[in-house]
Amino acid sequence: MSLIVQKYGGTSVANPERIKNVAKRVAAYRAKGDQVVVVVSAMSGVTDNLIKMAREIMPLPSEREMDMLLSTGEQTTIALTAIALQALGVPAISLTGAQAGIVTDGVHTNAKIKNITPKQIRALLDQGQVVIVAGFQGQTMEGQITTLGRGGSDLTAIALAAALKADLCQIYTDVDGVYTADPRIVPTARKLPEISYDEMLELAGLGAKVMQSRSVEFAKKFGVIFEVRSSLNDNPGTLVKEETPSMEGVVIRGVSLDKNQAKLTLVQVPDRPGVAALVFKAIAEANINVDMIVQNISHGLASPATDISFTTDKADLLKARKVIDSLKDKIGFREVIADENIGKLSIVGVGMRSNPGVAAKMFETLAQIGVNIAMISTSEIKVSVAIDLAKGEEAMRAVHQAFLG
Amino acid sequence: MSLIVQKYGGTSVANPERIKNVAKRVAAYRAKGDQVVVVVSAMSGVTDNLIKMAREIMPLPSEREMDMLLSTGEQTTIALTAIALQALGVPAISLTGAQAGIVTDGVHTNAKIKNITPKQIRALLDQGQVVIVAGFQGQTMEGQITTLGRGGSDLTAIALAAALKADLCQIYTDVDGVYTADPRIVPTARKLPEISYDEMLELAGLGAKVMQSRSVEFAKKFGVIFEVRSSLNDNPGTLVKEETPSMEGVVIRGVSLDKNQAKLTLVQVPDRPGVAALVFKAIAEANINVDMIVQNISHGLASPATDISFTTDKADLLKARKVIDSLKDKIGFREVIADENIGKLSIVGVGMRSNPGVAAKMFETLAQIGVNIAMISTSEIKVSVAIDLAKGEEAMRAVHQAFLG
Repeated sequence: MSLIVQKYGGTSVANPERIKNVAKRVAAYRAKGDQVVVVVSAMSGVTDNLIKMAREIMPLPSEREMDMLLSTGEQTTIALTAIALQALGVPAISLTGAQAGIVTDGVHTNAKIKNITPKQIRALLDQGQVVIVAGFQGQTMEGQITTLGRGGSDLTAIALAAALKADLCQIYTDVDGVYTADPRIVPTARKLPEISYDEMLELAGLGAKVMQSRSVEFAKKFGVIFEVRSSLNDNPGTLVKEETPSMEGVVIRGVSLDKNQAKLTLVQVPDRPGVAALVFKAIAEANINVDMIVQNISHGLASPATDISFTTDKADLLKARKVIDSLKDKIGFREVIADENIGKLSIVGVGMRSNPGVAAKMFETLAQIGVNIAMISTSEIKVSVAIDLAKGEEAMRAVHQAFLG
Repeated sequence: MSLIVQKYGGTSVANPERIKNVAKRVAAYRAKGDQVVVVVSAMSGVTDNLIKMAREIMPLPSEREMDMLLSTGEQTTIALTAIALQALGVPAISLTGAQAGIVTDGVHTNAKIKNITPKQIRALLDQGQVVIVAGFQGQTMEGQITTLGRGGSDLTAIALAAALKADLCQIYTDVDGVYTADPRIVPTARKLPEISYDEMLELAGLGAKVMQSRSVEFAKKFGVIFEVRSSLNDNPGTLVKEETPSMEGVVIRGVSLDKNQAKLTLVQVPDRPGVAALVFKAIAEANINVDMIVQNISHGLASPATDISFTTDKADLLKARKVIDSLKDKIGFREVIADENIGKLSIVGVGMRSNPGVAAKMFETLAQIGVNIAMISTSEIKVSVAIDLAKGEEAMRAVHQAFLG
């Protein structure tokens, strides 16, 4: 008998019909003799609709009340899921985050899990119940309802798997698992049977939208092995786990393309100490995430000057530009150039560490198809380049071909 | 400074626009220096939609899970109402039934309030907050979410008013208050400035749909004076309170017409002891509410026989008929006649007690306009008659005219 934690996202529980399908899958595991804890998200569309109503009343509603409001979404799903299991003759009971013993800090709309007391869940499992837990939510020590922010239901599932010492944690989604590249762009992309936490983290940060980084970080911290798999079929998914020696044999685990980046370049910035600090402090204070930063060498003019480029999410481009413009007098650069037509192409793999020449091979591949590299940034297990967006998909296919066949 | 408990029903909070209107009204009271506790129902339509989804999954879903499901409706409204008050610059905070300290028994979907610990509400009021409480819901001592059944939000408001020793409890609805008769039928009907608990209870049981009996009973038990008034205007409503000597001066407080009754007659029932018991025990076991019962005198046939008639809700007619048919062999009556074309016309007033001849005057009035009386039932403060449905409204106007002008 295994203890399995399963998590189903919003599209998997989008309507009563799909909830019935989820119940069938859960019932099949239980019929094999497993104990099952099910974590569900709000039915897709529900959360957006609640947010819309709140904004009709007030553009920036209080975060405490948003948590009170949004937590109803998951509460609706757990009740319907429990009913669907009961309809199949399977004993099932729903628990809110609070009832499940999920205690968080008091940072509304983005709370952190402080601890989990799964006493209630254990007792119910021992009674033979399937336990359905509301994802994305918890409660402070003082009894305030909180939510965990984006990707919160994944976090609930992984945290419960850790607290319950579950044998398996399955994250059901609408894709079959983690691929070497997006199969819609790279037809030869393959599903990975396994991937390390670190590789998954890099991919999460690179536009591969399977999971939020914080859930992967939590799983890594507590050593929770989880499987990303589809709720639409029975194919095995991708196991995400600690790096094993065999993983280093594969040089590159995957290739990703982030089309959602934009580049800002400050042209002819006076080359004196503290200028970069000034720029990126102001950007950070405006809550804008910066990804790649490149400072080119000086141009050898009479007064030394340099160009500073950085990338950010397209959505933040206008805001970032305003911040930079407000610094013009203080810094004295010549102009700002915004470029929305960039794509960030990345290769990820722990095997890079023991295989020198990976970056060179990537650059060479791009050169062969005439793609110019605008920026480069690397980590121990990743190489990213900013390139012309129009050539992004072609470049992705070429790089995938070069490393992964 | 007064402490006011206000309750707003589903139509008063049906959409963000109406919730804003509720907030304006609450803010106006608070601007006068009052402390305000607001109890809200689910937005109209929301509960029905949740029930529909559950039934799509299972015709008779578990009551524990229905409570988990339906309690989200009020939780949504409290958050939006708190946001609407904050948008007006009024400090406001929402509380679920559990957070408000409403402890119930464990009878899911129809729980009884066991006690209320309003410590949290008091503390928040003392901080200057308007406190928004989810109606219709509570929590057992063991932390299970429960709902209070039909009219539950009224009950929450009245119970909170009792627990907080509120100076005033206002039940906002879509009518101006309690009328001497339904103004859509009787154009001369007047709004009552006050009415006794007992009169209100009789009216609640007679098809006047302002409030459920149990809320009025609770108010009577704990001496909570409450006002029924409209959320659409600023007209004073109707105060519901303990009977005062002056109330006896008015013979009849109101006239009501229940069009939703049906009559079943068992013809030629053998007149022997225990037959009526047999009939109504079977009816009760089928969970059918019986209202009026009349047993006519024997017809003087060879073997003594009698007719038994009773009324029930139209919705229960078929079910009741089946129960009666199943008894035919056992009892040996000749036939069953069902009549859906009856109306129950009632007059209510505590003044009846000290004014003999009220019933006679009602019967006389009906005789004058040629209305035949099929059944009669009376209580200390009420006279009801079953009459031809087609003549119901005309009869109501005539009786209203005779007693109330």
